[in-house]
Amino acid sequence: VGAYRDVAIKMAPYIKSGTIITDVGSVKMAAIDALQDFIPDHAYLLPGHPIAGTENSGPEAGFAELFQDRWWLLTPLENTPQDSVEKLKTLYTGFGSKIGIMPPEHHDRVLAMTSHLPHLIAYSIVDTCVKLEASMQQEVIAFSASGFRDFTRIAASDPTMWRDIFLNNRDAVLDGLQNFIDDLTILQTAIKQGDGDTLFDVFTRTRAVRRSIIDQRQHVPEEAKKN
Amino acid sequence: VGAYRDVAIKMAPYIKSGTIITDVGSVKMAAIDALQDFIPDHAYLLPGHPIAGTENSGPEAGFAELFQDRWWLLTPLENTPQDSVEKLKTLYTGFGSKIGIMPPEHHDRVLAMTSHLPHLIAYSIVDTCVKLEASMQQEVIAFSASGFRDFTRIAASDPTMWRDIFLNNRDAVLDGLQNFIDDLTILQTAIKQGDGDTLFDVFTRTRAVRRSIIDQRQHVPEEAKKN
Repeated sequence: VGAYRDVAIKMAPYIKSGTIITDVGSVKMAAIDALQDFIPDHAYLLPGHPIAGTENSGPEAGFAELFQDRWWLLTPLENTPQDSVEKLKTLYTGFGSKIGIMPPEHHDRVLAMTSHLPHLIAYSIVDTCVKLEASMQQEVIAFSASGFRDFTRIAASDPTMWRDIFLNNRDAVLDGLQNFIDDLTILQTAIKQGDGDTLFDVFTRTRAVRRSIIDQRQHVPEEAKKN
Repeated sequence: VGAYRDVAIKMAPYIKSGTIITDVGSVKMAAIDALQDFIPDHAYLLPGHPIAGTENSGPEAGFAELFQDRWWLLTPLENTPQDSVEKLKTLYTGFGSKIGIMPPEHHDRVLAMTSHLPHLIAYSIVDTCVKLEASMQQEVIAFSASGFRDFTRIAASDPTMWRDIFLNNRDAVLDGLQNFIDDLTILQTAIKQGDGDTLFDVFTRTRAVRRSIIDQRQHVPEEAKKN
């Protein structure tokens, strides 16, 4: 995301009339800020974001089914022609993707919660392990149970990409992070005070979210349909 | 873990001479506290903990390969005879498990980091989602990317079991949690200040932990071998 402006400046002189300019970055407002001044009037900016990928990066990390059954979010600007939206829809549906359409600022708030904040937390807990004394760290690595092992996978993602995501979706990430720290402090206090009821209530209602994810795997939320 | 004392009281009168009493709970110091007063002198307490399992619970969640290639940690007390350790080793090796032996208080500190703290964090971030306005929550569920989706799986674990783990491994969990909150605050400050270098450094060193986990998958750490 940090490279968009330089790329836009370099490519601007070669953009033909009627070209649709899109991208695949994880933040959309910053992408628009970086690109829109350099897109000529005869071309159309239509930012996009496939919710697909692994902790690996680069062309070698691609595989044929990468976009199959995954969401590809499009975030049209006010002046993006509907025709451009239809063209990209056709292209990405051809990859096997499901299409979601939403305003760019809304995209950034949703992704802060579903992707950016979980990555920040995973990086952070793995860093807590890095700071342990060496023998303890070695045992944490050896006996890493499913919780910690899952976090290390996420925390192995590309550092440059993630640095740029956090720098470019600052406000939404900081809002979500503060909510998370507040909620975690409630659990911290409950453990300190031996308050099992609070722990049980939280752990019970979080189960429902998991069920919703499994149930709704194939559904487009109403809000995304409308936009 | 919260049920140990009652079970111990009920089974105590029926324990024959030479019986080895073991368990499979996620905390060991509290297990010993709950059990040892009720184990007759003619029997041997040898707490254990298989690092295996899924977010599902109960007998129906079992499967034949559950313990295959997984660690089974044994935490002998000072008066546990070596013969009992050998017997359980033989039994669990027969299940396909790898055996690790360590003091119970050490087990509780390692597991706080590898399992208990990651579960607490996963529960907490999913609870942050529960508190979002309904339409936003629906979209977070629909577009949950790999980070958040992984967390919801962990946060669907049994509420009673996890309440009891946190209440019974309080000090080790609270220590780890405070370290985690401190580390997360460093990242929060870096994002606020636009300090990309700090973010990049943290995200780079966490990658090394993932590599260690992949490399050391089959190794017994030296400390566990010695004990």
